[in-house]
Amino acid sequence: MPVIGANQRLIRLMPSILAADFLRLGEQAREVAEAGADGLHIDVMDGLFVPNISIGIPVVAALRRAVDLPLDCHLMIVDPERYLEAFVTAGATHITVHVEACRHLHRTIQQIHDLGVTAGVALNPATSLTAIEDILPDLDLVLMMSVDPGFSGQTYIPRSTAKIARLRRILDECGLQHIELQVDGGISAANVADVVGAGATSIVAGTGVFNSLPIAETIQALRWAIQPHNS
Amino acid sequence: MPVIGANQRLIRLMPSILAADFLRLGEQAREVAEAGADGLHIDVMDGLFVPNISIGIPVVAALRRAVDLPLDCHLMIVDPERYLEAFVTAGATHITVHVEACRHLHRTIQQIHDLGVTAGVALNPATSLTAIEDILPDLDLVLMMSVDPGFSGQTYIPRSTAKIARLRRILDECGLQHIELQVDGGISAANVADVVGAGATSIVAGTGVFNSLPIAETIQALRWAIQPHNS
Amino acid sequence: MPVIGANQRLIRLMPSILAADFLRLGEQAREVAEAGADGLHIDVMDGLFVPNISIGIPVVAALRRAVDLPLDCHLMIVDPERYLEAFVTAGATHITVHVEACRHLHRTIQQIHDLGVTAGVALNPATSLTAIEDILPDLDLVLMMSVDPGFSGQTYIPRSTAKIARLRRILDECGLQHIELQVDGGISAANVADVVGAGATSIVAGTGVFNSLPIAETIQALRWAIQPHNS
Amino acid sequence: MPVIGANQRLIRLMPSILAADFLRLGEQAREVAEAGADGLHIDVMDGLFVPNISIGIPVVAALRRAVDLPLDCHLMIVDPERYLEAFVTAGATHITVHVEACRHLHRTIQQIHDLGVTAGVALNPATSLTAIEDILPDLDLVLMMSVDPGFSGQTYIPRSTAKIARLRRILDECGLQHIELQVDGGISAANVADVVGAGATSIVAGTGVFNSLPIAETIQALRWAIQPHNS
Amino acid sequence: MPVIGANQRLIRLMPSILAADFLRLGEQAREVAEAGADGLHIDVMDGLFVPNISIGIPVVAALRRAVDLPLDCHLMIVDPERYLEAFVTAGATHITVHVEACRHLHRTIQQIHDLGVTAGVALNPATSLTAIEDILPDLDLVLMMSVDPGFSGQTYIPRSTAKIARLRRILDECGLQHIELQVDGGISAANVADVVGAGATSIVAGTGVFNSLPIAETIQALRWAIQPHNS
Amino acid sequence: MPVIGANQRLIRLMPSILAADFLRLGEQAREVAEAGADGLHIDVMDGLFVPNISIGIPVVAALRRAVDLPLDCHLMIVDPERYLEAFVTAGATHITVHVEACRHLHRTIQQIHDLGVTAGVALNPATSLTAIEDILPDLDLVLMMSVDPGFSGQTYIPRSTAKIARLRRILDECGLQHIELQVDGGISAANVADVVGAGATSIVAGTGVFNSLPIAETIQALRWAIQPHNS
Repeated sequence: MPVIGANQRLIRLMPSILAADFLRLGEQAREVAEAGADGLHIDVMDGLFVPNISIGIPVVAALRRAVDLPLDCHLMIVDPERYLEAFVTAGATHITVHVEACRHLHRTIQQIHDLGVTAGVALNPATSLTAIEDILPDLDLVLMMSVDPGFSGQTYIPRSTAKIARLRRILDECGLQHIELQVDGGISAANVADVVGAGATSIVAGTGVFNSLPIAETIQALRWAIQPHNS
Repeated sequence: MPVIGANQRLIRLMPSILAADFLRLGEQAREVAEAGADGLHIDVMDGLFVPNISIGIPVVAALRRAVDLPLDCHLMIVDPERYLEAFVTAGATHITVHVEACRHLHRTIQQIHDLGVTAGVALNPATSLTAIEDILPDLDLVLMMSVDPGFSGQTYIPRSTAKIARLRRILDECGLQHIELQVDGGISAANVADVVGAGATSIVAGTGVFNSLPIAETIQALRWAIQPHNS
Repeated sequence: MPVIGANQRLIRLMPSILAADFLRLGEQAREVAEAGADGLHIDVMDGLFVPNISIGIPVVAALRRAVDLPLDCHLMIVDPERYLEAFVTAGATHITVHVEACRHLHRTIQQIHDLGVTAGVALNPATSLTAIEDILPDLDLVLMMSVDPGFSGQTYIPRSTAKIARLRRILDECGLQHIELQVDGGISAANVADVVGAGATSIVAGTGVFNSLPIAETIQALRWAIQPHNS
Repeated sequence: MPVIGANQRLIRLMPSILAADFLRLGEQAREVAEAGADGLHIDVMDGLFVPNISIGIPVVAALRRAVDLPLDCHLMIVDPERYLEAFVTAGATHITVHVEACRHLHRTIQQIHDLGVTAGVALNPATSLTAIEDILPDLDLVLMMSVDPGFSGQTYIPRSTAKIARLRRILDECGLQHIELQVDGGISAANVADVVGAGATSIVAGTGVFNSLPIAETIQALRWAIQPHNS
Repeated sequence: MPVIGANQRLIRLMPSILAADFLRLGEQAREVAEAGADGLHIDVMDGLFVPNISIGIPVVAALRRAVDLPLDCHLMIVDPERYLEAFVTAGATHITVHVEACRHLHRTIQQIHDLGVTAGVALNPATSLTAIEDILPDLDLVLMMSVDPGFSGQTYIPRSTAKIARLRRILDECGLQHIELQVDGGISAANVADVVGAGATSIVAGTGVFNSLPIAETIQALRWAIQPHNS
Repeated sequence: MPVIGANQRLIRLMPSILAADFLRLGEQAREVAEAGADGLHIDVMDGLFVPNISIGIPVVAALRRAVDLPLDCHLMIVDPERYLEAFVTAGATHITVHVEACRHLHRTIQQIHDLGVTAGVALNPATSLTAIEDILPDLDLVLMMSVDPGFSGQTYIPRSTAKIARLRRILDECGLQHIELQVDGGISAANVADVVGAGATSIVAGTGVFNSLPIAETIQALRWAIQPHNS
């Protein structure tokens, strides 16, 4: 259930499973679903594109059995075209690849679409928006990293807010408002309103969701932070 | 609790977590511990060394919280020296690297030892034993793959038995009986006696453990298959 | 013999040998020459930069013996600087490298020029024009891919037309009208006028030339489609 | 039509298309077929595994249309498992991969067999026979390079003869006489008898076949050189 | 001692040790220090990022013992994050990495800062300024290459002057005047005034310093060329 | 001036410049020459083959100007064939490449010989002697690493002595006594007699030469340690 955020846009909350308790992934995924999250964000890391090795295909397959939520796979891997089919077969309903990892980004996006799921492109904090200007109309989602990908629990890079706003302006000016503007990295109830205010429509939160409080409460807090301040 | 197998050797049973139910990893790990397994074998795959992306550092850290068992990390990753410290920090008590993935195998083994854990080298089915002849005395374990690494549930390659026997002979002749001879791939109660008979001392079993029966029962069946035929 | 197309520009037709019958390459090349094509476009693929392995140096050398046409080698290979000399020695008269494949693009262009042939840079469909803004004045040709490189017989990406027009405007505004604006991918008599209308001056056509009709006829049809509608 | 060579073995002649005239490949392939060759050897080079880029998938597909001969594809490419299916779809009836290019050689051989064609492994001149000792029983063919792969027209390395003899002895001692022992590099009528005498059963000849004489004559000369000295 | 150049900016002179006499590096470094240079520029090349292998960590450590000057390490290496700590430990006081060599540029810059030294990003001649637009505020220095990196003694690319001016305008407009604008490649007394006039604040000179004249004289000539013509 | 060591073999002393004082390389090289060393061993590291970046082509060129000694370049770099010519042009009189870094080792050795210098192959401590069994007759030198390459000042791996003896036996049995058996890593006056006793004919010493004593003295000590025990 997306909330209505700034500028009357629908805002989706996508908890990142990377911050969950891996010992009881099924339980955590179900809690997330019951708390009304709009999907699960799954951080796949291969130790080459990013300096960490996290989780992959069999974990996606397991999560698929656990919940009916959209499974949004964020592939932090080199040459992601090699594994698109495996992730969709495992149950991914959305795949985001990194612009820094793709030589033939147009083909990769087309392959994701041909597999019957939606497609996104992620940008690292230092990557210029010009890198996606010629693929934007083909996308369902742009993932703006607000930390350097690789680890959960990092601090939001303040300059990200201005970059989100720049992308928002481009999307609006080009009639591409249907493209999800997702932000990932260091988001919590304390800064989510700014992120949404700048133009994000999809919020990934990891340690901001799976922390000491019950998941339902922190998701409620995120919704609260988004909603009232922007309506 | 190792069982006594063929030729009075102690045989260790190391269930591979790759075949477990990832939705309830903690529970499964504890069942394995209670069933008396001698450790958890953790298959780390990076999508480059092998054609699959499985699990990595945060999953090891979670398992460390769940059980007191030895955590035997089998790194199916390129240039494993990059991640040795991260796996040990996460809780690994043993690390096996692939001879096909290491340029400076002697240094890598030394680095594993310097981190305070035991060290093994894995060989793919097509890799000659000559590849390890000059590192053998430094090892705590040799992992002989009896399938091509990358997926659980594959069929044991029959020719592996003869290769195990050849390695056993080398270890015995060189006075290296203290080195664990681990075998991984397609092992079940139906063939474990042959594997042990050929000289294995450590048995990795994945789908052979985490199947429709209770874990304790299948582990018991594996022990049974090892024990009586060899005493 | 270039035709005069839209805006009085000379338009070159460059059949792509990738779509020819490889059993009788000499014959096909001569037919192309006799039909008045302005050169042969040779698609070199290494299976790494693109997901196909096509033809290479000895085929260029053979074509050099067959015809006097310019041989325009489009290197879809990684680190193309390794093979520049070999292609020129084999008979290339023009070399195009991919901006996505070069770390030191300025040096690579200079090396091509030092070998005595003209130099081009190709852009994949998703690659921003900003990627070439600092090399443009050094080029003899820009190759705008209108499909993802790797295979012949793909469909023209409609959005390419607008991108061609943007590059045309840049070339005109910067006084760089002498730079060939080549387009490659899915071009046939049905859409060539639009491509030329947007500003292309060099047309690569593969299956659009080597199809069931005699080559001379399809080349004539392409010329016809370019000429009358634009003069 | 294999000839009977030394020790009553059947010897196959496999002309290498790399040395043919690429302008009339169909014609040359048919001449080879009519001259009674036992197959076409196709040298695929990607510019990374070897320092040359030769021919690939579409050329195999063309040759498939030209002749009924076995098409023996020698993949001098990195990570050949990426292209096995494409070559078989194009018409390959046999695929040889390099041991120096494969991390999971057992799997690659299995994949070739699963595609319904025979499988071989090639060794560079400096590669030890120990590199294939654990895959030998799975193979249909071993290709012993008698030059460093990459170019046609090189000179036979004299030491190859002893290496062929060593492999012949291994094959005979292990009851693996059904495995083809192919030799490639610098073979002509002048040295073919020695190569066969040492134990080869399949002879690749490039410039030794496609030279100034009619193909039928040079093939006849090769047969002659093989036959009389050994019967 | 920086000189005051065009527009009242302080201009630093950074002789590049690559052009020094490696037989008496200590002596040369001390001459440079005595001549009043503002630091030593150290060109580290790994043979992969650039086509040359020059000097590395132990040479930096040696120079650190020789002089008190800032040691400005220009890492022309792939994946520079692997060696940041080693260079700082060896004595680097500033590290510049190439935008073309970094996947996670924001993290790399942060890591350099975390090591307690200043951080720069270098751009190859063909690299667009858009490549750094989202990292600029984090930098202490931008290194604009005015030749393709890899060798000393190359000729200044004339078009660099305009690119320097463009970057100068961006820095001024964004209130980023504190960022050093360094230029490297083919600079001598003959063209340094133009480079400074376009907006550079840090001048790397190699063969322009270590030539037949005493170092003090050529540095004096560079200062002279900068100063009078621009005040 | 080689000394006569064990078994009446001539033993060459090759100080490794990596341990010298880089501030006065010329002086140190001349001291080495005057002390009667048989050549300079130059450790080239690219940061990829080994985890260190040391010195490269311009340093070799400088040393060439300093002394008349043989310059023995030990290339610890990936794909060394790329730089053979550059090192020979710079003044190398001998080049050693690593077997672990070469795909086409026979060609690489041939290329070194074609450049007019002698050729060696180095083996890491964990690399089997089988890796060179098919290239041995082409070599002028085998370099047995007695530490993992990458750093000077490491401790000699005791097991190396047995491996040297095994290689010595192979060389003697194959009539290849003319091949230099070089050992590198952790050698000093304390262990050099054992190394020579095992069969080495060329000794690389780094910190064992360039230490607190005058070079002439430590070289004298090394000679002394070699000589008396074997005459």
